[in-house]
This record gives sequence, structure tokens and C-alpha cells, in this order.
Amino acid sequence: MNAYTCIRSKRDTRAYQTKPVPEDTLSRILQAGRMAGSAKNLQPCRFVVLAEEARKKELAACGQFATHIVTAPVAVAVVIPQDGREFDAGRSAQNMMLAAWAEGLASCPVTMHDAPCARRILGLPETHRVAIVLAFGYPAPDERRRSSPRLPLNDLVHHERW
Amino acid sequence: MNAYTCIRSKRDTRAYQTKPVPEDTLSRILQAGRMAGSAKNLQPCRFVVLAEEARKKELAACGQFATHIVTAPVAVAVVIPQDGREFDAGRSAQNMMLAAWAEGLASCPVTMHDAPCARRILGLPETHRVAIVLAFGYPAPDERRRSSPRLPLNDLVHHERW
Repeated sequence: MNAYTCIRSKRDTRAYQTKPVPEDTLSRILQAGRMAGSAKNLQPCRFVVLAEEARKKELAACGQFATHIVTAPVAVAVVIPQDGREFDAGRSAQNMMLAAWAEGLASCPVTMHDAPCARRILGLPETHRVAIVLAFGYPAPDERRRSSPRLPLNDLVHHERW
Repeated sequence: MNAYTCIRSKRDTRAYQTKPVPEDTLSRILQAGRMAGSAKNLQPCRFVVLAEEARKKELAACGQFATHIVTAPVAVAVVIPQDGREFDAGRSAQNMMLAAWAEGLASCPVTMHDAPCARRILGLPETHRVAIVLAFGYPAPDERRRSSPRLPLNDLVHHERW
């Protein structure tokens, strides 16, 4: 898929088919996350891949709107150091979600509202925390048509000064 | 450019040609930023585009490693509400930098270490703050070959549990 088309057409999607994510596709998704730039090239992001039903259920219990972690065939927790930048996690996550979308896979970020719960379930060291969890799967047919509207560009852009 | 190639090959680059950024290219970059998903579709990101030499110099004085804001033909300040998520700014910024790279434009995020300075220069309301500034420009010839090494994927990925 053309890069700009991929960027423009990607939508966060929470309903997936049960069809599994191929190994080589998952590998490209993780490579995309790995290649994201980061402040001072610190490469703060680590990825915990969850595919087992029981594991996904345990992690979903740590978020308030997280049930699509369970229905997604694969979830990737993006983990950063305690003092790591959410901004860098956002760059890496967006890379992964775009690489997924280029292969027809939908995705959606999931916030872990109960951070200690997520740390315990994932077995993270005290030095690290979950920035976000990404759910990945082929989109359910109905979901392809849904879209969250965006504000007009003119409402978002200022020139030289706010 | 193919989406995955674009994602994999994008490097943060601080040295640019003086060649200006075409209007339609800048428009696509901003559209890419606009289309990024956000938590609860709050669309927190606003963009302040700086192209005037004097304005870029004023803003560069608010960061510690920010001189490439001045040499870049265009800088885009990504602004979010005070309680906005840096994660969403990261998603939007990555979209813009990838859309730029798909057209051969290099970019680099610039941290504004003196946040009050950046707010004053940009004329932001008290409700908002700068998440990051992105510098955009055609890469200087030498810069095309430089690359920050990445850790091996095996060092970044865990399965089911850290």
C-alpha cells in the first residue's frame, strides 16, 4: 500500500475477525515499532506480545475499555522505562499500527487504567511501565465502514503564531 | 513509496537543503497529522507552522538542541491541551514525518526544554502547551547515509510475559 494512502486511511478499530495474524506479518509489525526514532536514540520501547486467550483476558481486566484485547488475535503491550517518554511510545505504536494496516490488519490502542495491575500481569520490572497496549486483528466486516470524524484542517492549523 | 518501506527507512535527520517545501507537500503532511487517531477521538493536536526565518530563530532559542529549526525550511509545532496526551502527539507527529519521508523530506523532532519560552513565542493560550516541534526539509546529501543503529528485535520483544 502507498504510504500516504496508508496514513490517511488508517482508523482505530475495535472489532476483529478470529483469523490469526501470520507470523511474518507480526514480525513486520514489530520491526516497524523497532525502527521508530526516539529522543537521543534511547530506544525506550519494549514489546510484550500476547496471543494466549487466558493472558489476554488477564490483561484486559486492567483497563476500563479493554475487552477488544481479548477478541483481537494478538495484543502488543508497549513498555517504557518509568521516566520514558509517552511521545516516543506514540511514534513506535503508530509505526506498528500503520505497518499492520498496510497488510489489512486493523488495530486500536488500549489504555491500562490500572497500571499496577498491568505491571503485575505482564511481569514488568519496577523500572518499567506500560505506555499502551495495541490490539491487532483483521477487521470485522461491519467495522470497515465506521469512521470517527475529524475536525477540518483549518481548525487545527495556525501560521507563524497561534 | 510503499508504506512498510517508508516506515522502515525513515530516519530522524537534522541537516537540510535550503530548497523550500512545496505548499501541496506541506498540506499532505498536515493532513497526515490530522488523520492520526487519538484517545476517545479527542483530536488534541494543533499545528503551528513556522516558515519565517525570524520566527524560527525565536523558537529555536527555547530548546537546547534546536538549531536545525532555523536551517529547516519549515517547522511545525505540535500543540496539545495542558492535560493532553504526549502519546497522541507522538502518533500525529509520526504520521507527519512518515508522510514527509514518502515525498523525500527528512525531519526531526525537537524538544522545547524551556516550555514557557515556547508558549510565549508561539502565542499559545494558557490552556495549551507544546508537545514537540518537528523540523522538515529535503535532507542534505551527507545526511542520507547516516543512521542511528537499532537494538536487535530479540532484545526488544517478550512473549506472553516480560
